[in-house]
Amino acid sequence: MIAERMEALVKNNSAIRAMFEEGNRLAALYGRENVFDFSLGNPNVPAPPQVRQAILDILEEEESTMVHGYMSNAGFEDVRQAIADSLNRRFGIHVSAKNLIMTVGAASGLNIVFKSLLNPGEEVIVFAPYFVEYRAYVTGYGGKLVVISPNLETFQPNLSELEQKITPKTRAVIVNSPHNPTGVVYSEETIQELAAILNKKEKEYGHPIFLVSDEPYRELAYDGVTVPYLTKYYRNTIVGYSYSKSLSLPGERIGYLVIPDELEDSETVISAITIANRVIGCVNAPSLMQRVIRRCVDVEVNLEAYDRNRNLLYSRLIQYGFECIKPQGAFYLFVKSPVPNEMEFCEAAKKYNILFVPGTSFDCPGYVRIAYCVSYEMIQRSLPAFQKLAEEYHLPGSGSCHCEIEKQ
Amino acid sequence: MIAERMEALVKNNSAIRAMFEEGNRLAALYGRENVFDFSLGNPNVPAPPQVRQAILDILEEEESTMVHGYMSNAGFEDVRQAIADSLNRRFGIHVSAKNLIMTVGAASGLNIVFKSLLNPGEEVIVFAPYFVEYRAYVTGYGGKLVVISPNLETFQPNLSELEQKITPKTRAVIVNSPHNPTGVVYSEETIQELAAILNKKEKEYGHPIFLVSDEPYRELAYDGVTVPYLTKYYRNTIVGYSYSKSLSLPGERIGYLVIPDELEDSETVISAITIANRVIGCVNAPSLMQRVIRRCVDVEVNLEAYDRNRNLLYSRLIQYGFECIKPQGAFYLFVKSPVPNEMEFCEAAKKYNILFVPGTSFDCPGYVRIAYCVSYEMIQRSLPAFQKLAEEYHLPGSGSCHCEIEKQ
Repeated sequence: MIAERMEALVKNNSAIRAMFEEGNRLAALYGRENVFDFSLGNPNVPAPPQVRQAILDILEEEESTMVHGYMSNAGFEDVRQAIADSLNRRFGIHVSAKNLIMTVGAASGLNIVFKSLLNPGEEVIVFAPYFVEYRAYVTGYGGKLVVISPNLETFQPNLSELEQKITPKTRAVIVNSPHNPTGVVYSEETIQELAAILNKKEKEYGHPIFLVSDEPYRELAYDGVTVPYLTKYYRNTIVGYSYSKSLSLPGERIGYLVIPDELEDSETVISAITIANRVIGCVNAPSLMQRVIRRCVDVEVNLEAYDRNRNLLYSRLIQYGFECIKPQGAFYLFVKSPVPNEMEFCEAAKKYNILFVPGTSFDCPGYVRIAYCVSYEMIQRSLPAFQKLAEEYHLPGSGSCHCEIEKQ
Repeated sequence: MIAERMEALVKNNSAIRAMFEEGNRLAALYGRENVFDFSLGNPNVPAPPQVRQAILDILEEEESTMVHGYMSNAGFEDVRQAIADSLNRRFGIHVSAKNLIMTVGAASGLNIVFKSLLNPGEEVIVFAPYFVEYRAYVTGYGGKLVVISPNLETFQPNLSELEQKITPKTRAVIVNSPHNPTGVVYSEETIQELAAILNKKEKEYGHPIFLVSDEPYRELAYDGVTVPYLTKYYRNTIVGYSYSKSLSLPGERIGYLVIPDELEDSETVISAITIANRVIGCVNAPSLMQRVIRRCVDVEVNLEAYDRNRNLLYSRLIQYGFECIKPQGAFYLFVKSPVPNEMEFCEAAKKYNILFVPGTSFDCPGYVRIAYCVSYEMIQRSLPAFQKLAEEYHLPGSGSCHCEIEKQ
């Protein structure tokens, strides 16, 4: 009845729904407060108060037919210029309104990039683990996703494998830093090395290879770590951004793309992406939220709340004997499963009312993603459950070390 | 540099931009108030005051993480139920929350329908004249648009040609009533006849043919005319709706799809479309606007304003000698060009600072679309210009009938 392209997606989706329903089942049995759902990347920190104030001021000061009306498919020019000014100031780049396209979140931003750039059979490279919907974004426009295997030591991108896997058909490489699901921030050194490889391969094949930087977590970086702005390192870079995390507006679907002048044939690419925004049906990013961004362009997320969560959960999980890279960004821990099949580990966790996402969902089995964009109190309440889970696997810090290696 | 699929679109787009720039050029020369731009379908009637009040109340009464947060990809359940209740009450249908999917406007609603239903090479039938982006929506997912020629007498759909053009590859038929660009409302008789043909062809070919009803103008119907609700006439109907016109929120991108239980394999189709909403990158309809709809579900547009415009402009154009069907819906007049090539007519109109859209843009040359969703005062100011334009063509009512046939 439905298109063939949708059949596998519908099938996979029932797994996600099953987890959602499992959460509801546990909540009904044990009470919502006794279920520790770490499966969703939905910020628990409310939107900053400036967002509310901006909406009130807009309703007071701006004209309704403008606030809720059509504008250029690229978005309001003053909004784009305000963002450009902020980016220029913060990252030392040189863009203006014409280099920005307001999008219905980062997800539709990526869709219109691939709609605009990919011919059937062209390849897009991604580093595992990765946000699994990239595959649908790429194949939806006839592209082929090529996966680079994970570097399990550091979760920095595996650049030697990248170099081997670039072919004449490679059209783009996706990077995502701060990274979902590992929380890793790509270092400047990594970015420089990546740029060098892409430059070399561009010359070798005689056509551009686009670097698509998906950055919804840019503002969520801890320990004072710097997140390099990629257009400064590689000319054929397109940046996709979203205010879902930085202003806690995930439901509003508001983000933008940056296509700098340095990008090859920049003007044509900007035209194509602007038109793609229209013909995939987004038309334009939601207008009131664009007006809000205009007024909140430098408003900062409550980073301390996430950082507090990060420190508590990370330190305790390590103490209980779990293995995990300490994340420097985003709001996820990517924890090694104590058993090779992490699905088993997920099942075991459910016995303690803990829910998280198997690494297989990020093309990286043997790990699980724990989203700590939840209340601090829930993390506190969950700790005894995590400790019991560690005990079940006789992890070294679980307090039941009588047979540590038995379950290895 | 860009994908082949985008090349023609980028090229065509420069024509639209050229008109936009022509408007700006004329405004700079003669003053904005002396340019009569009838080219855009952007409502000039502001959003009803209840929209503003709803936003204020939501900010006061509802929780920020919910108002701006993720929800099911189909949308908030209470919003969908509120719309379902309203539809059931107003049109005597029987739907509930599960039959509705909130969408980023009607345009993305149509996109996710075609993404979910079309296999490569399958056909979608449309009646000329039609909103030209339907072609991009259909071909974007591998489909082929099949065009039925216009019925120039009534602009009701040409059903005998429809019957001939349905093939085993026909997957869907798009209808749009009240109609852009003609303002025609499809009569109940037309719908019954259309349904009979589709039922017959479904039996003949042994698979469903979906009727996709694109209804952003449903609430804009004059003279007390009834707009039939199509799910009541044909079981395999999917309705696409938008609040762009009925609440004057075109920039907000808020609408919905109705997929009734009667539709074949309804549950799978609903799943596929919900997932398509996510993977084309919309993810969900903007959350605050969903909450607004919940509170404004029965709010009515200021129809009198449009009706006043319609009556003034229609009566005067007829008086000046132009030929046009009297529209019963939407906010457009589809006027016959006095010369076969309507591009010439558009050029002539520009001399009087009048801008409208050539029928070729709707696959119906020889006509022009005049959008009267503008201020009454602008229509009043434009009338002498229209009269001069009529005089140029020596139309019978223009007051210069000395050589009517000269320009034929």
